[in-house]
Amino acid sequence: MTETAITKSEKTTTALGEQMYSLMTELFPICRSITGDGVRQTLDIIKKDIPLSIHKVPSGTKVFDWEVPKEWNINEAYIRNSRGEKLVDFANSNLHVLNYSTPVDRSITLSDLKEHLYTLPEHPDWIPYRTSYYKEDWGFCMTHTQFQKLTDDVYDVHIDSSLEDGHLTYGEYYIAGELPDEVLISTRVCHPSMCNDNLSGICISTYLAKELRRKKLRYSYRFLFIPGTIGAITWLYVNEAKVKNIKHGLVVSLLGDAGGFTYKRSRQGNAEIDQIVEAVLKTKDTSYKILNFSPYGDDERQFCSPGFNLPVGSIMRTPFGEYPEYHTSADNLDLVTPVALDASMQMLHDVINMLETNKKYVNINPKCELHLGKRGLYNMVGGEWAGRDYQLSLLWVLNFSDGNHSLLDISKESGINFESISKAASKLFEHKLLIEIGHDS
Amino acid sequence: MTETAITKSEKTTTALGEQMYSLMTELFPICRSITGDGVRQTLDIIKKDIPLSIHKVPSGTKVFDWEVPKEWNINEAYIRNSRGEKLVDFANSNLHVLNYSTPVDRSITLSDLKEHLYTLPEHPDWIPYRTSYYKEDWGFCMTHTQFQKLTDDVYDVHIDSSLEDGHLTYGEYYIAGELPDEVLISTRVCHPSMCNDNLSGICISTYLAKELRRKKLRYSYRFLFIPGTIGAITWLYVNEAKVKNIKHGLVVSLLGDAGGFTYKRSRQGNAEIDQIVEAVLKTKDTSYKILNFSPYGDDERQFCSPGFNLPVGSIMRTPFGEYPEYHTSADNLDLVTPVALDASMQMLHDVINMLETNKKYVNINPKCELHLGKRGLYNMVGGEWAGRDYQLSLLWVLNFSDGNHSLLDISKESGINFESISKAASKLFEHKLLIEIGHDS
Amino acid sequence: MTETAITKSEKTTTALGEQMYSLMTELFPICRSITGDGVRQTLDIIKKDIPLSIHKVPSGTKVFDWEVPKEWNINEAYIRNSRGEKLVDFANSNLHVLNYSTPVDRSITLSDLKEHLYTLPEHPDWIPYRTSYYKEDWGFCMTHTQFQKLTDDVYDVHIDSSLEDGHLTYGEYYIAGELPDEVLISTRVCHPSMCNDNLSGICISTYLAKELRRKKLRYSYRFLFIPGTIGAITWLYVNEAKVKNIKHGLVVSLLGDAGGFTYKRSRQGNAEIDQIVEAVLKTKDTSYKILNFSPYGDDERQFCSPGFNLPVGSIMRTPFGEYPEYHTSADNLDLVTPVALDASMQMLHDVINMLETNKKYVNINPKCELHLGKRGLYNMVGGEWAGRDYQLSLLWVLNFSDGNHSLLDISKESGINFESISKAASKLFEHKLLIEIGHDS
Repeated sequence: MTETAITKSEKTTTALGEQMYSLMTELFPICRSITGDGVRQTLDIIKKDIPLSIHKVPSGTKVFDWEVPKEWNINEAYIRNSRGEKLVDFANSNLHVLNYSTPVDRSITLSDLKEHLYTLPEHPDWIPYRTSYYKEDWGFCMTHTQFQKLTDDVYDVHIDSSLEDGHLTYGEYYIAGELPDEVLISTRVCHPSMCNDNLSGICISTYLAKELRRKKLRYSYRFLFIPGTIGAITWLYVNEAKVKNIKHGLVVSLLGDAGGFTYKRSRQGNAEIDQIVEAVLKTKDTSYKILNFSPYGDDERQFCSPGFNLPVGSIMRTPFGEYPEYHTSADNLDLVTPVALDASMQMLHDVINMLETNKKYVNINPKCELHLGKRGLYNMVGGEWAGRDYQLSLLWVLNFSDGNHSLLDISKESGINFESISKAASKLFEHKLLIEIGHDS
Repeated sequence: MTETAITKSEKTTTALGEQMYSLMTELFPICRSITGDGVRQTLDIIKKDIPLSIHKVPSGTKVFDWEVPKEWNINEAYIRNSRGEKLVDFANSNLHVLNYSTPVDRSITLSDLKEHLYTLPEHPDWIPYRTSYYKEDWGFCMTHTQFQKLTDDVYDVHIDSSLEDGHLTYGEYYIAGELPDEVLISTRVCHPSMCNDNLSGICISTYLAKELRRKKLRYSYRFLFIPGTIGAITWLYVNEAKVKNIKHGLVVSLLGDAGGFTYKRSRQGNAEIDQIVEAVLKTKDTSYKILNFSPYGDDERQFCSPGFNLPVGSIMRTPFGEYPEYHTSADNLDLVTPVALDASMQMLHDVINMLETNKKYVNINPKCELHLGKRGLYNMVGGEWAGRDYQLSLLWVLNFSDGNHSLLDISKESGINFESISKAASKLFEHKLLIEIGHDS
Repeated sequence: MTETAITKSEKTTTALGEQMYSLMTELFPICRSITGDGVRQTLDIIKKDIPLSIHKVPSGTKVFDWEVPKEWNINEAYIRNSRGEKLVDFANSNLHVLNYSTPVDRSITLSDLKEHLYTLPEHPDWIPYRTSYYKEDWGFCMTHTQFQKLTDDVYDVHIDSSLEDGHLTYGEYYIAGELPDEVLISTRVCHPSMCNDNLSGICISTYLAKELRRKKLRYSYRFLFIPGTIGAITWLYVNEAKVKNIKHGLVVSLLGDAGGFTYKRSRQGNAEIDQIVEAVLKTKDTSYKILNFSPYGDDERQFCSPGFNLPVGSIMRTPFGEYPEYHTSADNLDLVTPVALDASMQMLHDVINMLETNKKYVNINPKCELHLGKRGLYNMVGGEWAGRDYQLSLLWVLNFSDGNHSLLDISKESGINFESISKAASKLFEHKLLIEIGHDS
């Protein structure tokens, strides 16, 4: 499990990768935050692809230990020197403003201004991304090169923003399957102009939903497009009654860079989703890493808080904070590639395929072997073993379908790939030799 | 655990090894199959050593998903060329005929004949063993050398066999011990002239039964001499009510070659028989392999089908299909040695000895140590520890005899050999310091 | 985990190390045994430091399978040759007399005398320590050098001892904490003039008790100063009703030599005390060894007998019998150092600190994260992770305080040191965000 990048097999880009990249390009310029018009514009664009329902929760609503904050919007912002030159301008990059900055419009000395400036000396041409959601403050983020050019002057600082009662907005899309049991797919919509974190998650979730709605599904699927932390808390608060249906879940983010996959297990640690993602990653010829749950990271923190403890893992490529462009202006359209988006989507497809097919069966003739030959299910030239995976798979599925072993369990026990086991089970099910048992039985 | 062969300590052959080899020599020429006179001749010979009861189940009897097949018998068979020369003759080797061949008597071109011929190009002087139990067909097996000499000719093919309603025959021998709890020893009697597979299993089972009947036994023992697959299925069907008494079991086969032992665990995986065979193999200076259960192999497939899930493992030397002579005419009296048979028997003895003695006890004075000194059970020159295995064993047995630990558990926990632990337990039991607890309590 | 000695950090001796060594020096000359005046003198000296209660159990009292023996006392003993020279004299070392020797006063030939002599040929200048508690006998222990000088002579052997009905005496000191749940600290007081075994245990137990009585404690602590084996059996017999309060325990001995620490697990194997001692030893830069329970050794044999099965481990440096001076006159004041005593005490302190603080909590707001920021518990410059151990600790404690995880469990799970986790828990408890759950709930 070294941390290398996309393999050759992933290098052929596809129409789907290009479409996701194109959606990302459209969403990139919008100034998103945890509330405000940017989120709504984003959801409106997603809605062109999938019939998202958009929910609004008023500022001030108590949600567990938290409160929905005031809504933040911004029109323009700049720093102007005494010669009237705009040195830093929100119009050039929405990262220039400390996200959630209160309005300001005044003259200020360089030394006072510096209290409100953020730079990245180690990457002098990148703008850092900073927020101040829960402490009223204002500030500007700029390249360190810009910062070093600031002379002893009096500056006009102008932030035309508003922080007022409004709403927290999130998008939700539910696809009903055969079962009320749900798979949760959650992604964040609160980051301004950055691509890997987390337009990659948004684009992949959108296209995954778009594809799943055309399919016949065993599980129901719930896609959430929510602002980070407060969005997850709000959703859980408002939808607490629905939580019991969530049988599997993934937080989806950071899926567009060139790094290998990283899977962070649910707090349960060995939930079916944990087993399945690991099994899928094992089939890939790319490197990957498996991390245990920890109570920091993305919105799995909320889904896996001890009062919910949902089987929700987190799938990404290079983890948060482990690539230099993370939370900077360099997390842009150059960092993410259609090829990487495409391979990420393929991996999620495989996960969902395995989830959909990883059933538990009971062999209804559990005493002794079945006479497969008389049903044409078994090719043996007597005495010589024609042992192909498929035929062994029939035996394994019959012997271990005792209600305690899922097909993935049988695949692991036998060392035979899941696909063969799954095909054998389907064939036996067609022949009415197995019955499927319910999710919770 | 490399796969080497018999060690020096095994090289001294014994009278017992020679006797088993002599029985094998007597049984070798008989043409056995899953039904027919060959099986009955075989059982009659075994009956000279042990008072086998012989059971016959009529063709057509439904046994779970199967049906007892028609009985097959054969008198003679050959292929004759146009010059009247018998090129292949059943009289030379019963492997020459596809086992369960239907009768045939006709002239045939070389090209049509070839549809019915089986050879082993990679071993041109060996005859392969092939069967067609459940699909009516006829055929001949021959050396590849014979095959290559066939010229473009018209051949008389003649198989004087019969496939008619009759019986499936099996032998059974039950030795009553103190307990109704049974140890099952099962071996196959369906192979024609081949030695390791499975005359070795027959000879060892016979002599093991012969020896056990002279002993005072805790467990009852049930020996089965059955045709493969259909015999096990038939036995289980007919004797389903007895199955609950089977507490341990072994399928016994392939025990005459020079390979190290192979033990395939029961489906339960950690049954007492699994633990015991592994513990015994560990005490040997020969190499051995332990395999997990898989639903193909020998008759453990039936005993370990999920509806029975009996604690039955499979003991052999080189596994099925892993030695080149397997299922060919080269699996003959040269492949098997009295030395190997003898060492296999010794290993089974050790397994049975451990099974018989691996009891669970309860220390009836569980609070603080016993004063062993006053009972003469403990030699200490005060202050100087005279710690020999036996004396440590007394302490281990007393401390861990809490109803949860068998003597084998205590042996593993302490690192002291089973024999010392077992002797210590016997001594303590004699002194009425332990009570034995029942098998299922 | 190699077996090296005290590290640099341990080399600075302290006042406490010197005080313990001074107590050892005072106790060294006394002739102790499992009964008798020596034990009482010893307890009286300990009583100057801690308010020990002294208990006397009459000879002949039945205690489980044992009986309290007669009390043994001795005034003088010697071997004198025909020229009237005392060759071996109890006045020089109380090890010279076989402990529990019956009185004797007679003339004897060299050859008869030899039946009663014990030496150590491999260490010709050391006197061995031998006892004969449960078999009436007499004898002398001497250096092998002395032994080799014995000539063919008639010797006067004189042992002025008494073996009469009296008492077994032990000391006990109970410190009441907030909880009735007890920590047992047990040490032996039956060895005559030897230091590591076990004056080291006595001195450390005494000073540990002396320190704990000044502290506010969660647990109650029970210190036992008892003769080996029969003392533990007697205490358990007399105090059986109290045993249920013992939640953790340590047998303390052999703590003054230069070897690394050795911890022998309780019979339970993974009791909280086992986990804690291992966690503490892991934090030390000294080597250490962890042993599984075995039913021989020190008084853990009684506390961990199956009828009690208490969570009592045994802590020492070099184990019993593994250093050459063990049970000889060379286990003297030169073998033990104040530095080693001091480091042993520090380790026990750390164990007790962790025991006292290793609580289980329940997060009373288990649904989603808490808003730590509004409580001033969380420093984040938004978007930039200020991830210090302390702040991560808050998240770990909140997420895993579900009633199933102790703080040590959380420390292990998170990889964050126990101290940080413990501080975070205290802070959260102060803020009334956690409730502590009882020991057994």
